[in-house]
Amino acid sequence: MLPISLHDIQQARACLETVAVRTPILPYGGTVRRNNSLWLKAESLQRTGSFKFRGAYNAISGLPEEERRRGVITYSSGNHGQAVACAAHLLGIRAVVVMPEDAIAVKVELTRRWGATIEFAGLTSLDRQARALALVEEHGYAVIPPFDDRRIIAGQGTAGLEILEQQPDVEAVVVPVGGGGLISGISSAIKALRPDVRVIGVEPEGGADAKASLETGTLVTLGHVETIADGLRTSRIGDLNFATIRQCVDEIVAVPDEEILQTVGALANEARLVVEPSGAVATAAVLFDRTGLSGQTVVAVISGGNVDPARLRACLSEPALALT
Amino acid sequence: MLPISLHDIQQARACLETVAVRTPILPYGGTVRRNNSLWLKAESLQRTGSFKFRGAYNAISGLPEEERRRGVITYSSGNHGQAVACAAHLLGIRAVVVMPEDAIAVKVELTRRWGATIEFAGLTSLDRQARALALVEEHGYAVIPPFDDRRIIAGQGTAGLEILEQQPDVEAVVVPVGGGGLISGISSAIKALRPDVRVIGVEPEGGADAKASLETGTLVTLGHVETIADGLRTSRIGDLNFATIRQCVDEIVAVPDEEILQTVGALANEARLVVEPSGAVATAAVLFDRTGLSGQTVVAVISGGNVDPARLRACLSEPALALT
Repeated sequence: MLPISLHDIQQARACLETVAVRTPILPYGGTVRRNNSLWLKAESLQRTGSFKFRGAYNAISGLPEEERRRGVITYSSGNHGQAVACAAHLLGIRAVVVMPEDAIAVKVELTRRWGATIEFAGLTSLDRQARALALVEEHGYAVIPPFDDRRIIAGQGTAGLEILEQQPDVEAVVVPVGGGGLISGISSAIKALRPDVRVIGVEPEGGADAKASLETGTLVTLGHVETIADGLRTSRIGDLNFATIRQCVDEIVAVPDEEILQTVGALANEARLVVEPSGAVATAAVLFDRTGLSGQTVVAVISGGNVDPARLRACLSEPALALT
Repeated sequence: MLPISLHDIQQARACLETVAVRTPILPYGGTVRRNNSLWLKAESLQRTGSFKFRGAYNAISGLPEEERRRGVITYSSGNHGQAVACAAHLLGIRAVVVMPEDAIAVKVELTRRWGATIEFAGLTSLDRQARALALVEEHGYAVIPPFDDRRIIAGQGTAGLEILEQQPDVEAVVVPVGGGGLISGISSAIKALRPDVRVIGVEPEGGADAKASLETGTLVTLGHVETIADGLRTSRIGDLNFATIRQCVDEIVAVPDEEILQTVGALANEARLVVEPSGAVATAAVLFDRTGLSGQTVVAVISGGNVDPARLRACLSEPALALT
């Protein structure tokens, strides 16, 4: 019995139908090792630039009327915060996003743009959580967590339904893993409908907690995480996510930062996509042959495109990938 | 009576159905003047990185068996050359692309990648045409012209059908104009089905021959063309294209190079799309309010994404657009 059912995901799909972008699956025109046919599911083109919009909108739109009136809160300065702000805006609901005092100006601006109220609290995630809980206590806001949540996972799973429809020949789906929400949703959808399709997770080498957890069979918390892929700097995946990954994910592999950065450059040049480092890890695993797939039809999920312009500039100076 | 009928375009669509990417229409999340709702038709995500694939594949696949056996030829070092090479490859047909002796290495490589034979001839377009004609004479290749051709225009028109389906609320479609193939196809499709939708062409200020032609009612050939938008450096649109534009295009506007470059940066940051300068002119016209549209639902066509990495790096250093 899976934590998230196909029915949950299909309901999320009905809810997202008219608001989420049905992101394209694009043939990768560049060279790919081992003769794989590589397709890209470009969630970087989703609203607010990442898959996070799917889960956030599904979670918020399902709140009972009374909770909707009070508003929602989250504590993420990244893609989830933007997604919550945008989803709440579209639904006409008040949103509060708690950010660290040293949050980057552009991320504050992108979240504020959707009309969210920004609350600054300390520098650590504990500071932010404490402030969020105090605000919940005071105002009765509904908390929208980033990944360890059924409604969030069901929302992300809608990308899995689309993959099967858009590329029915798919033999393996490769997915970035941070907190585990995206791969939990996608793998639940895929294993329910097409158990023959392999699902492979990818983490940066400097933060491979899900890989360690799947391999040891116990939920591992990393003491130290260091990677360029800022969206995947989670030290521990969620409980629901771990339960799902154990049942639905075939393998998790890790890629070094250097390969991630080269892949950001390759995706700009070969696929005309602006991708953030976290969003590029699944493609990197295929291009640098970390998955061992051979001659198969592979879909790599690009999870997000919110990259700092200076970082993207640097990646465009990387030498072109020469894979033969 | 229009040169290209809706039926021609619908036939092209059937021909392209399983090979061309149905490129997404994406909501532009950034700020837009005059309260327009802006949507992007991202042909930069088409095979080979531009809309040119649609026309090239439609033209080549319609050749009689005997001509297909002999192969095809074109004389373009740019997006059309790549598109012809890729379409011929997919159809198992020999392709020859005539390029100038000083063609940029990366463009040669991108064309050769699809198995095309590259012939180098002189430095001018007359040199290339002469070499192409000699090769046609010798080998009986079928010539695939870049824009002044019914099959090419019908192929490009399939993007117009998609726009109407993907954004039925559209009130105005804004399209880059080079030789005029793309806007001829799109405007033919749109005026046949939805004559109430405005179609607006956009050229760079340094090469506004179509604007001059539409305004004077005679086909203007420019003596001098100078713009950063290398794909739109045509000095004269085609005859079929002029006949179509006169009947189906409401207005043509021009944008300066500086606004084009800022828009390339904005599209990377706000829409996570890698776009070449030529591909950005329609979006630039909306963002910089050259179209006069107000409060409308607008679709801007992004025609291509094959930008030199150094150019893209420079555009990412442009100050962020601040439109209020």
